[in-house]
Amino acid sequence: MHKPHVVIIGAGYGGIMTTVKLQKLFGKGQVKITLVNKEDYHYQTTWLHENAAGTLHHDRTRIPIKEVVNMNKVHFILDTVVSINPIEKKVKLENNELEYDFLVIGLGFEKTTFGIPGIEEHAFSIENINSARLIREHLEYNFANFHHEKVKDNARLNIVIGGGGFTGIEFAGELINRIPELSAEYDIEKALVRIIILEASSTVLQGFDPQLIEYAMTSLGSRGVEFITNASIKECTSDKVVYEKDGKQCEIPSKTIIWSAGVRANGIVEQSGFGTKQGKVEVKSDLRTPDYDDVFVVGDCAMIIDKKTNQPFPASAQIAIQQSSVVAHNIKALIEGNATKLFEAKSLGTVASLGHQDAIGVVLNNRKVFGWKASVMKKIIDNRYLYKLGGLGLVLKKGKFNFFY
Amino acid sequence: MHKPHVVIIGAGYGGIMTTVKLQKLFGKGQVKITLVNKEDYHYQTTWLHENAAGTLHHDRTRIPIKEVVNMNKVHFILDTVVSINPIEKKVKLENNELEYDFLVIGLGFEKTTFGIPGIEEHAFSIENINSARLIREHLEYNFANFHHEKVKDNARLNIVIGGGGFTGIEFAGELINRIPELSAEYDIEKALVRIIILEASSTVLQGFDPQLIEYAMTSLGSRGVEFITNASIKECTSDKVVYEKDGKQCEIPSKTIIWSAGVRANGIVEQSGFGTKQGKVEVKSDLRTPDYDDVFVVGDCAMIIDKKTNQPFPASAQIAIQQSSVVAHNIKALIEGNATKLFEAKSLGTVASLGHQDAIGVVLNNRKVFGWKASVMKKIIDNRYLYKLGGLGLVLKKGKFNFFY
Repeated sequence: MHKPHVVIIGAGYGGIMTTVKLQKLFGKGQVKITLVNKEDYHYQTTWLHENAAGTLHHDRTRIPIKEVVNMNKVHFILDTVVSINPIEKKVKLENNELEYDFLVIGLGFEKTTFGIPGIEEHAFSIENINSARLIREHLEYNFANFHHEKVKDNARLNIVIGGGGFTGIEFAGELINRIPELSAEYDIEKALVRIIILEASSTVLQGFDPQLIEYAMTSLGSRGVEFITNASIKECTSDKVVYEKDGKQCEIPSKTIIWSAGVRANGIVEQSGFGTKQGKVEVKSDLRTPDYDDVFVVGDCAMIIDKKTNQPFPASAQIAIQQSSVVAHNIKALIEGNATKLFEAKSLGTVASLGHQDAIGVVLNNRKVFGWKASVMKKIIDNRYLYKLGGLGLVLKKGKFNFFY
Repeated sequence: MHKPHVVIIGAGYGGIMTTVKLQKLFGKGQVKITLVNKEDYHYQTTWLHENAAGTLHHDRTRIPIKEVVNMNKVHFILDTVVSINPIEKKVKLENNELEYDFLVIGLGFEKTTFGIPGIEEHAFSIENINSARLIREHLEYNFANFHHEKVKDNARLNIVIGGGGFTGIEFAGELINRIPELSAEYDIEKALVRIIILEASSTVLQGFDPQLIEYAMTSLGSRGVEFITNASIKECTSDKVVYEKDGKQCEIPSKTIIWSAGVRANGIVEQSGFGTKQGKVEVKSDLRTPDYDDVFVVGDCAMIIDKKTNQPFPASAQIAIQQSSVVAHNIKALIEGNATKLFEAKSLGTVASLGHQDAIGVVLNNRKVFGWKASVMKKIIDNRYLYKLGGLGLVLKKGKFNFFY
């Protein structure tokens, strides 16, 4: 008897949670489950800004796949996906090729530079463990260089964040906590260090409640973060960023430009012939692709329209995790010849951290929260995910309990 | 009544110990003592290789001047010496000018590149706190970059030490202890990392006992250090080092070239018109310069011929510390109209560390020591210096007691 083969590509929030749900839904040997990922660990994308700032070690953010996936039930392949052939039901990997009966695409996002010259070569981005810890080391390296050079170069101490969205703001908040440590380590006066957020639109944190935006800007501003809005980045070089504001060209000397203004769905999806909008597959209500009944998409590669606003839900860990339950359930239903169930997003709220002990957010019933209380809620949300993924053991190992610092 | 003004320039081993001795010899107000240094801390040059490797924090190596110098008795000036005018008895600083009755020159060493192209721009050197911690961060930065780049670049993992003298060997020993940590931090297989010592002459540790050299090479070699002798460096670029061996040009891809093959006395001494040999002043037996009776030279800027061998004593912390006692005594003698005493070097032995728990050396009565025992002796020597400089308090604060790791 042919055992149905479920292949999950990508071990981000959507992929790993689908895998964990599937291994619970099926007894050993009922189906063949294969998980493919290019690293042997899952990581929490929403914590990477802390690793990049150096306020949290990346080993707290990543979780070895074998710790949460039952290797007796799931076959794990450490490899990189090259392309998908949905007609032949095959996935091509760098060193392998897989055939599937059901495919779950959870390939996540990648950065997009909008063709701005120099971003690709000179800017850093908070994408994964490798890029996050590189930012941490790049910062340290530049601080270490400052007093070593005969001519002091302020470009080494100016940190420019391109994009005042969620990630940019959260990263700035962490930097505020990190700079005093770096300054002490390298004998640099704190006042010499600048953190500058360049935002193309008229406000940071677009889409957030205006009152909360004001709170965030006041809080970060009072701790030294500079905001330049209506500023569109024109070019990055190895030691400066050029932007346009009010029709004028300006530049900031900086060796550390963090590009957090553009992400898009992993290009493999579009290149593999799926119908996409802005690179994403607009999935059916049961999270399958419109064209292929055996392919599910979760997380950043999936687009779901919010019927209330007629806008797509923003990509978030929360949505991906919610999707994974439905995907796992629907795969079981299809295998057993039952009807699939429909996905309905439940907003549990959104909290953006502003460094230690500060945050802003909207929680259940659209209640606004800010300050210490919000920072605690953020940590509770993070711990809740760890619980879902790996139970109490994982919460105790990787959870955040530093409510008071 | 004119109080004699004693100016000490440089707070290395010789300068700081002379200052500390002087403040003990004179009561408050008897003389005016001024110490000039370009940092507000003294540091142990002989520990810098550990800071560079990242096995010891630089705050253990440096000692704030105010912790060991009595600021009621000594006037400390944070400034950089530009030149000395021994005829007018003046010292020019970047932001000041001083007149002296007695001058103690303790300006230490600086690196010399022998004009090899690219060393100045691309190689690192273990000279001071700033350069040592930069090496530590440069190593981390390259390891952090390794997995971030699509094309893996082994130049990031090849560490080339140019010069197999004391510093080069000690640095290699520390690296052996550091590499496993770095490899774990950045998910890099230890076997990919290479530590290569390029030595121009036929052996490393020239001047050491052949049996001890063999021990050192076997010990480091067994832990993965590669030795290339009779190899003269021809050029450094940002990602390789070119050397010549047996008439052939070879190159090693490397972004980390540590130049430890050449130091010379601080150039200010020669430029200020003192008669020098190899940049050093061949001092009289009471440690004054032959031409100026009010100028003493200690440490790396002084040359003293060992009458037994007719060779100059090698520059060492030990000699500088011994000199400082004599200099302080002689300044007091001159002020009080007494005869100066003569300097006689006492060899207390030399120990080179080979990483944790291993070392080689020659101690009192030319007894050879190696292994763990030698490593303990090295630490005892280090602690003895701290005791001389700042008493038991300083030993407890900065001393080395990790005899067993």
